[in-house]
Amino acid sequence: MFASRPVVHPMEVAAPAPAPAAANQAQQQQQPQQQPPGVLMKDLPGMPGTPSGLALRVTQLLLAAISLAAMSSTSDFASVSAFIYLIAAAILQCVWSLSVAIVDIYALLVKRCLRNRRLVTLFFIGDMITCAGTFSGACAAAGITVLIDNDLNICSENHCSSFQTAVAMGFMCSFCIAPSFMLNFWSVASTRVLAA
Amino acid sequence: MFASRPVVHPMEVAAPAPAPAAANQAQQQQQPQQQPPGVLMKDLPGMPGTPSGLALRVTQLLLAAISLAAMSSTSDFASVSAFIYLIAAAILQCVWSLSVAIVDIYALLVKRCLRNRRLVTLFFIGDMITCAGTFSGACAAAGITVLIDNDLNICSENHCSSFQTAVAMGFMCSFCIAPSFMLNFWSVASTRVLAA
Repeated sequence: MFASRPVVHPMEVAAPAPAPAAANQAQQQQQPQQQPPGVLMKDLPGMPGTPSGLALRVTQLLLAAISLAAMSSTSDFASVSAFIYLIAAAILQCVWSLSVAIVDIYALLVKRCLRNRRLVTLFFIGDMITCAGTFSGACAAAGITVLIDNDLNICSENHCSSFQTAVAMGFMCSFCIAPSFMLNFWSVASTRVLAA
Repeated sequence: MFASRPVVHPMEVAAPAPAPAAANQAQQQQQPQQQPPGVLMKDLPGMPGTPSGLALRVTQLLLAAISLAAMSSTSDFASVSAFIYLIAAAILQCVWSLSVAIVDIYALLVKRCLRNRRLVTLFFIGDMITCAGTFSGACAAAGITVLIDNDLNICSENHCSSFQTAVAMGFMCSFCIAPSFMLNFWSVASTRVLAA
């Protein structure tokens, strides 16, 4: 089973139905281009293999990289476990987003469709893990940052602005993964229903 | 449009197809019982209106209540913003889980089916908000608890065991909402595809 396949143009199916005789003829002509079972016809914006999907991945990569850079630029991040966890989550996010972005670029260049059920399930699981990791890291670091800034008021002794930047970028990154995760889950659910 | 409707037994549809003439007759007889468009036939365990769905809600309610009780039993929770946020998220979770549990009990008692598209979308949005709230509250409180316990080693001056219990229950609660959220999203995606 191939992981990708040539793009099938969905607009032909959505066109108004021709007369019955012509329809039969057209159906026979289109036979070799038919969708394999369990594959969605619609290519929603943001799904893997689309330009907007690639844009989402690049945005995630940039935001995770900024979060990682802002946090690791501080000298005392190693003394707080939550900050180390955010750095680890941001590194994982960078690796994952870069990998999927490379697959997206390949798919766009050779015009292959990535709406394969196994591939979409893999993307969904990867997105779920990285989304949960980045979001939990950002939340934990936000808890510490608010404690330092608002509760204890010891910002003068710490790099509060760097911590805040890292946390904000971590949250924005996890909000950027959410659409990819949702669209992949939607795609998995739809293909399962259509295949049933 | 009614939010609930009488249960339609899906086994009749899954039965082997009778002869064509008998099938037409049976179809005419079954006309009043047909599914409205955009409603899933399958009732997966854990969905609203099923006994396992009710069990999930009751578990969420209990875990959120334990987390709330453990955190609010400490005398110094009000000095840390993350702990106050966890308490607020646990209260919201209790209210939401109790409300949906009451709807589930009603649906089970009067044997109504809750697989209506609007109702499932409402459950999905509510689950998403409460799941994100409880998970982020647990993460933020976990960051502070790990800071107190591992990084600063000042557990002797704080109620570490209560904080740890509250955080653990918060995490378990958010892991209990995840199946409800996923199943409702699956149901929304499936009904949209079937209705399209």
